[in-house]
Amino acid sequence: MRNTFGNILTLTTFGESHGPAIGGIIDGFPAGVKIDTVQVQQQLDRRRPGQSAITTARHEDDKVQLLSGIFQGETMGTPIGFIISNKDHRSTDYSEIARGFRPSHADYTYQAKYGRRDYRGGGRSSARETACRVVAGALAAQALNTLGITITAYTSQVADIKVEDPYNKLDLSIVDNNMVRCPDAAKAVAMIDAIAQARKQGDTLGGIVTCVAQGVPPGLGEPVFGRLNAQLAAAMMSINAAKGVEIGLGFDFVTRRGSQVLDHFTRLENKIHTTTNYSGGIQGGISNGEDIYLDVAFKPVATLMQDVDTVDLQGDPMVLHGKGRHDPCVVPRAVPIVESMTALVLLDNYLLNKTIHL
Amino acid sequence: MRNTFGNILTLTTFGESHGPAIGGIIDGFPAGVKIDTVQVQQQLDRRRPGQSAITTARHEDDKVQLLSGIFQGETMGTPIGFIISNKDHRSTDYSEIARGFRPSHADYTYQAKYGRRDYRGGGRSSARETACRVVAGALAAQALNTLGITITAYTSQVADIKVEDPYNKLDLSIVDNNMVRCPDAAKAVAMIDAIAQARKQGDTLGGIVTCVAQGVPPGLGEPVFGRLNAQLAAAMMSINAAKGVEIGLGFDFVTRRGSQVLDHFTRLENKIHTTTNYSGGIQGGISNGEDIYLDVAFKPVATLMQDVDTVDLQGDPMVLHGKGRHDPCVVPRAVPIVESMTALVLLDNYLLNKTIHL
Amino acid sequence: MRNTFGNILTLTTFGESHGPAIGGIIDGFPAGVKIDTVQVQQQLDRRRPGQSAITTARHEDDKVQLLSGIFQGETMGTPIGFIISNKDHRSTDYSEIARGFRPSHADYTYQAKYGRRDYRGGGRSSARETACRVVAGALAAQALNTLGITITAYTSQVADIKVEDPYNKLDLSIVDNNMVRCPDAAKAVAMIDAIAQARKQGDTLGGIVTCVAQGVPPGLGEPVFGRLNAQLAAAMMSINAAKGVEIGLGFDFVTRRGSQVLDHFTRLENKIHTTTNYSGGIQGGISNGEDIYLDVAFKPVATLMQDVDTVDLQGDPMVLHGKGRHDPCVVPRAVPIVESMTALVLLDNYLLNKTIHL
Amino acid sequence: MRNTFGNILTLTTFGESHGPAIGGIIDGFPAGVKIDTVQVQQQLDRRRPGQSAITTARHEDDKVQLLSGIFQGETMGTPIGFIISNKDHRSTDYSEIARGFRPSHADYTYQAKYGRRDYRGGGRSSARETACRVVAGALAAQALNTLGITITAYTSQVADIKVEDPYNKLDLSIVDNNMVRCPDAAKAVAMIDAIAQARKQGDTLGGIVTCVAQGVPPGLGEPVFGRLNAQLAAAMMSINAAKGVEIGLGFDFVTRRGSQVLDHFTRLENKIHTTTNYSGGIQGGISNGEDIYLDVAFKPVATLMQDVDTVDLQGDPMVLHGKGRHDPCVVPRAVPIVESMTALVLLDNYLLNKTIHL
Repeated sequence: MRNTFGNILTLTTFGESHGPAIGGIIDGFPAGVKIDTVQVQQQLDRRRPGQSAITTARHEDDKVQLLSGIFQGETMGTPIGFIISNKDHRSTDYSEIARGFRPSHADYTYQAKYGRRDYRGGGRSSARETACRVVAGALAAQALNTLGITITAYTSQVADIKVEDPYNKLDLSIVDNNMVRCPDAAKAVAMIDAIAQARKQGDTLGGIVTCVAQGVPPGLGEPVFGRLNAQLAAAMMSINAAKGVEIGLGFDFVTRRGSQVLDHFTRLENKIHTTTNYSGGIQGGISNGEDIYLDVAFKPVATLMQDVDTVDLQGDPMVLHGKGRHDPCVVPRAVPIVESMTALVLLDNYLLNKTIHL
Repeated sequence: MRNTFGNILTLTTFGESHGPAIGGIIDGFPAGVKIDTVQVQQQLDRRRPGQSAITTARHEDDKVQLLSGIFQGETMGTPIGFIISNKDHRSTDYSEIARGFRPSHADYTYQAKYGRRDYRGGGRSSARETACRVVAGALAAQALNTLGITITAYTSQVADIKVEDPYNKLDLSIVDNNMVRCPDAAKAVAMIDAIAQARKQGDTLGGIVTCVAQGVPPGLGEPVFGRLNAQLAAAMMSINAAKGVEIGLGFDFVTRRGSQVLDHFTRLENKIHTTTNYSGGIQGGISNGEDIYLDVAFKPVATLMQDVDTVDLQGDPMVLHGKGRHDPCVVPRAVPIVESMTALVLLDNYLLNKTIHL
Repeated sequence: MRNTFGNILTLTTFGESHGPAIGGIIDGFPAGVKIDTVQVQQQLDRRRPGQSAITTARHEDDKVQLLSGIFQGETMGTPIGFIISNKDHRSTDYSEIARGFRPSHADYTYQAKYGRRDYRGGGRSSARETACRVVAGALAAQALNTLGITITAYTSQVADIKVEDPYNKLDLSIVDNNMVRCPDAAKAVAMIDAIAQARKQGDTLGGIVTCVAQGVPPGLGEPVFGRLNAQLAAAMMSINAAKGVEIGLGFDFVTRRGSQVLDHFTRLENKIHTTTNYSGGIQGGISNGEDIYLDVAFKPVATLMQDVDTVDLQGDPMVLHGKGRHDPCVVPRAVPIVESMTALVLLDNYLLNKTIHL
Repeated sequence: MRNTFGNILTLTTFGESHGPAIGGIIDGFPAGVKIDTVQVQQQLDRRRPGQSAITTARHEDDKVQLLSGIFQGETMGTPIGFIISNKDHRSTDYSEIARGFRPSHADYTYQAKYGRRDYRGGGRSSARETACRVVAGALAAQALNTLGITITAYTSQVADIKVEDPYNKLDLSIVDNNMVRCPDAAKAVAMIDAIAQARKQGDTLGGIVTCVAQGVPPGLGEPVFGRLNAQLAAAMMSINAAKGVEIGLGFDFVTRRGSQVLDHFTRLENKIHTTTNYSGGIQGGISNGEDIYLDVAFKPVATLMQDVDTVDLQGDPMVLHGKGRHDPCVVPRAVPIVESMTALVLLDNYLLNKTIHL
């Protein structure tokens, strides 16, 4: 329950930032899916630290080793175990961080919860754990692709630089054309500029990732506590630094009247569709066959390259000196993570749905 | 997994809107908690249809019968089963609704998922199910109260009428002074007026419920997939008509710089606290002892008292005639539901936390 | 986890022996299964107290009320909630039992675990809870029947009176021809006689229930922790008074050599079968298409109609006076319970199996 | 659910017999437990192939690498990931086994379930997976030891050579004095002799492992579906080749009268105890503070060093030639596995029990 995600398809992860390795086990993955391991590594590379000028300089190869569950290029129906070695844990001086709590980090809450913490690089609270999600998500995406389901996320806002067009007015095939992963080229330039400037100032920026799932059949999602809304929200809000999520119109629904936002039905090529999609492809917690789209708000990360006043374990004042290698804005690297969590939710629900009828 | 919520403390619910009864089973509720059943009924009455001029006219007594798990006024540690009878299922003519899909409702998605649906009053997709959550939440709240944890929700926005003050500038003891459950008296008047007007027009309004949990000890929440952010988001987004959730600053984080929103530590009465609370009481997915606060966005419900164009089971055009009894704005009745889901999450995590040490 | 059984198909139960009602929620039951409610009640009647001269005289109608999840005679895919009222809780004098622990009962362990107990009729520890399992099992059996899977249990031993023939030499259609539910008519007479005599002496007898599942397709069961062996064993050992379980040859395997008990393969009507079935239809934890058969050992119940020395809450000696209405041998009434648990396991695994392939 | 065991404390395993590695993730392990990694390896060595003259000659170092969750010699409360490399997968000729089904093995059932199988060394169905359980069990045992709970298993029967004394008449400290792990020295000699002889004949033997848990406090186990009986039975029957389990008197209860097997209460050193322990330390599914003891029946393994008639994938007859390296009797190596599963169940329930009270 704690380090496991999913119902039928489950991902369990382990690993601290500066231990020998992180890794995971994917259970319930369907048998007989052809796996392209190169593509898994490519998705992992999109999350990798040190990939571009606007990410952390921490260098990790992030080569995943798939240890089980795949035989002769196909999944076996047995659990897929994998590890990613941690290579670049420099012999840093941890004495300061061992003794003080970084503000708005997990240092204090881990200490309060467990009575101890692995202070090296944030230990288990480090976003390094999300690399495991990307491995699982990339595998899930391959299964979904064979079903005609595709998932694309992109950076839709950094600080106050916002893509105004909705996802269906954008060319989602060019997301990776720039290092901020924004399909609006002009906004991308502005975003990169803003991030570079924040980095110079030792400061950080927040942003929004928008994610779109296309080709999702009607019927996915469980109607009560397992509404697709709820499952996707949990998936997104389980990502480090995520602080808000909305589906379809989301918060914009609040100021609309019911009569303005009904998604009317029509028949298209002998299938029932809606003429608009305010609902974001989910009604009554269940997919209706239209595109699912959602936004995830990420706060500016709390690790500043500045000296910061804080307290130590006893609550006495101390100063933490800004150092290390960190992202001035996590949003571009969060893009493949958001895609991965979406893929896990959708494949899980696709499988679960097969149990509805005898 | 489908109709069950929680890890240690679980609520499983059953029931269709127009069947003989709805009900649930609460498992894992701690033993030895004194239960005030009158107070459970009072919370249920806050969600009850027909309670005020701005809610649906459907009349239900909503008297809960607690069938097990409580003996001599105390919980036993055994499951608490309960039912609520459905009294007012008038002999309506269902022929139209049996044949057509109400737009932006769950009619089509249930049909697509299960190949059938109980069309009477929305069947399982009806928000009537949430009455069961209120029963469980009211019991959980009583357990939390003995620990000094209190939860209060209120209507903070209806359409474009928005309470500007943050929760800690409001008097949360007066939430029930008006029927819209808004602690800002002037805004409450405007909200009620707006709802009344929408009702006259056969239209509906959206809104926001804000929820605050106070007295939560540090350490609650599981660090990875079970982040308190994620659990609360899932809880909220599992409520009918919820389409967005944010914790702490939420979406407002996006335009702030990291240096502006650090929650600095300080020592207060020999405890570590933060001087600000942008994080909303949760850091690294774990409570830090500050107030937890969150917003839930509700869309304007799709049931209009107007004739609506739609399609039938075959996709052929038809008209559904607006009738029945419905809420022009669900937000006031959602207040106790949001409180209930928050209570369930917090008590569940409180119990789970006891397993961390031998 | 505590009062819930199953993975995809789950049964959660509630209720104390002498509370207003017991009941349960069946979740994950497939949609579109035609339900014969009369047949459910018939199976419940086979477990009912007071049904024959060799069972307890406690009188309960045990009429189940199905409250949800079934519409127009078919399952909906939504949870099936049900209750069974407790009618015959006479105004007994509980003062003795409230103060003392019945030996080999759950009185002491409940008190130790929860710090309290509902002493009226054993509270939650009463086998009355198993009536809920029979409701769920009867529904599951109806779904299994449409798949050609049938489950039959019978009394194969009472005290030292043992049916010597294996299940496949017996006529399983005549199980209910006698009140001990033994398909060997001569042994049935001896068993009934032994039970009657034990009752006269205020004593109780143990026995064995054998259960056979036929028509189970190959492939059911999960290979590691969810081996069909393990799931069935847990199901059986969760029944009150069960103390042993064996599958196929079971304990008799111990004295055989590997070469004597290989189940050799052969082709029959173009399907692969085994020529013997020592394995009991399960190999590597997965069904192989042959009959599944198992034995469950029940201890003689601890409630004697005799005065019994024991201790009170403080550990001081006291005498409990034998009274009340109890079964001298629970085995005949356990037959439908064993069938029910087997049905739940098999339907659950049948559904789970559908998720193996995309 | 499939490859995960436990409720609060969970073990998830992965790995095929001849893949690069097997491994697992232990989640929910309590924080602050001092870990002796040497002792973990020692327990693993007791299960290791090639350890003695009566086990398989397959050589594996079976060195476990603990990758996370332990810091400065103590558990952190975070998941403990580990791997064990597979070293000795010789370049065997798999062509025969790829094409035929070994009788009474999992070859056919895996093929039927998944439509494919990893035929190299049995793939996932190999008992090699149980090495992961021993790692987790050894860690759990260390936590239990700090609570005064100890678990000892031993070989109590091989073929028809049976230890007649009950566990409490034996010196359990000498279990490892002989390679068959039987604390009755004379019987051990006979067992070893029998196994050696079976090996010479290319045949295999079954047997029984008895396990004793001492120092278990009253109150462990969940009363209904999670009875300690049920959890232990599932744990045992999830072990390869296990076909029967009994707790306390088990199957011997069947021929006793209730009045003969009541465990009467008495007060001892101000605690309530029983004067006998027919129940095996569990009453009403909950531990009563007495020793828990149980038996597990293992069938003679199906891998004979003889030529065996069988069928191929199409059901056509073929002969499999006996070769490879296998155990003539798995019982001695099953001893640490039975201990491990018992440790996992008890620690899990100990932790779960902490959630009963606020």
